[in-house]
Amino acid sequence: MSDQHADFSRYNFVCLAGGVGGAKLADGLVRILPPENLTVIVNTGDDFQHFGLTICPDLDTVMYTLAGVANVETGWGRAGESWRTINAVSELGGADWFRLGDLDLATHLTRTQLLAEGKTLTAVTRHLCQRLGIKTAVLPMSNQPAPTLIDTDDGLLPFQTWFVQKQWQPVVRAIQLPTDVRASLSVMTALEKADFVLIAPSNPFVSVDPILNTYPIRALLTDLPRAIVAVSPIVGGEAVKGPAAKLLREKGMEVSGTAVANYYGDLLDGFVYDQQDANTVHLDIPTRCLDTMMHTADDRIRLAWQMVEFAVELGN
Amino acid sequence: MSDQHADFSRYNFVCLAGGVGGAKLADGLVRILPPENLTVIVNTGDDFQHFGLTICPDLDTVMYTLAGVANVETGWGRAGESWRTINAVSELGGADWFRLGDLDLATHLTRTQLLAEGKTLTAVTRHLCQRLGIKTAVLPMSNQPAPTLIDTDDGLLPFQTWFVQKQWQPVVRAIQLPTDVRASLSVMTALEKADFVLIAPSNPFVSVDPILNTYPIRALLTDLPRAIVAVSPIVGGEAVKGPAAKLLREKGMEVSGTAVANYYGDLLDGFVYDQQDANTVHLDIPTRCLDTMMHTADDRIRLAWQMVEFAVELGN
Repeated sequence: MSDQHADFSRYNFVCLAGGVGGAKLADGLVRILPPENLTVIVNTGDDFQHFGLTICPDLDTVMYTLAGVANVETGWGRAGESWRTINAVSELGGADWFRLGDLDLATHLTRTQLLAEGKTLTAVTRHLCQRLGIKTAVLPMSNQPAPTLIDTDDGLLPFQTWFVQKQWQPVVRAIQLPTDVRASLSVMTALEKADFVLIAPSNPFVSVDPILNTYPIRALLTDLPRAIVAVSPIVGGEAVKGPAAKLLREKGMEVSGTAVANYYGDLLDGFVYDQQDANTVHLDIPTRCLDTMMHTADDRIRLAWQMVEFAVELGN
Repeated sequence: MSDQHADFSRYNFVCLAGGVGGAKLADGLVRILPPENLTVIVNTGDDFQHFGLTICPDLDTVMYTLAGVANVETGWGRAGESWRTINAVSELGGADWFRLGDLDLATHLTRTQLLAEGKTLTAVTRHLCQRLGIKTAVLPMSNQPAPTLIDTDDGLLPFQTWFVQKQWQPVVRAIQLPTDVRASLSVMTALEKADFVLIAPSNPFVSVDPILNTYPIRALLTDLPRAIVAVSPIVGGEAVKGPAAKLLREKGMEVSGTAVANYYGDLLDGFVYDQQDANTVHLDIPTRCLDTMMHTADDRIRLAWQMVEFAVELGN
């Protein structure tokens, strides 16, 4: 990969990421870009307090994936996981709907301890990444809590209550993002230096929007990068994973890459969609029709490479 | 044991307990007294917040012992324990000096969750005891936090920092108990109904004193029970376990049952000390010289039986 590094190493890239889709694209990018030229900014809108612990599901998925310790079967948590603690919690009548593995718990315990010692979430994440052997900067979008709330037919629900406990089944009326959350200095610095921004195939409403909503990220994105390219989370008329298609339907929108690109609107300079949707995406901005499914490490590298190439082409 | 139950079932007993010694005597009492006639009041002065979790070491030791799931090898934690989470915490650079087992963690997670839901520590403990199959009432001395601080040559330390992290080695200048902690209603009700109070062979300074210091427990003990009997934690000139002998020395007191009984002073109506100390304890109150070492379940039952008998004798 060293020759590939050479090609793009004079540019700085930022990847905006949610959970699994974001983690996979970030993993591809990490394998083709030098650490000093890549920053991954991660949604923390789905973070929550549970059992007194600060849990950051998207940050953890990205960290575990980049460290090569992610559980690929479940799509969350760590490989080789065991469940002694949460099973004992069940026996004690505690809350067991959020399946905390024994190894995964160590992350939440360590994070909660370091936060209690006064470190920022950014510093804690840096510490955890160092321990996990991750060289690329992984940044929470903010050091402040920024809880996404889901207004549903079952009432206003904390994100994880809707997403995990109720398996995203309650019909969504609106997604409520906080109005007063600011990006960390690290995030602002990364965006000020960014030549290109890649938006991962994450959920536009509950993964990417919380990042864009964090002040002043949307403004910096409008002004600064040479090009912003997103990849569609909708493939073959359905979400690859999670509630993106359901949310599009409940918003009265078409379930398509076109709808996602139009939702991002002026922010985008280019849009990537899957080959299964060939000839169905019609936009005024440049597009690429690619194999976007990231089953293997090679798939991740290929898509990352093609997105980087596309972005650089658009920006020159 | 049904004939033994019959003997004492018209009396109500309260046992004041710290950790291991308290748990063992309580276990003996539970095996000879009907649940409705016994209440165990447990020290919570060594409770602490760790990783965001509320940890109550003495309550846990008592609960695990009464439930038959205590780890008899370590003297703390649960039998059949595993250490996946805390080992992973070590790898992540988190605090690993307090060895939280995977099963033990479930107790702290469940307790912290239930406290966050607004339950009192008394209600949470009742819930955990029910789940663990414990029929006897086990009560925290208070629903309020009541942290014991240890003033040492290394500075003023939270109890568990001194006790576990520094293995109670720093020389103790003073033990600081909070001044504004009140007993729960359940504790006061139990003491108002109590005919006899048994003080377990727990540390007088850091296990029993925090209970006595909780308002208005000392006053209720002075007024109400027919007799109060303590058992010496000092055997053969040393503590059976933990820092009792070291604390006596550092207070300039003799390391003996006599010193412990004199420390409790007027509170006591009778005192039990070990056969190894035969002819060394000289007090103005009635004493019993017994085999107080509780190695086996039978030992616990025998000592509990003899203490109950002694107390009833003194009170009639």
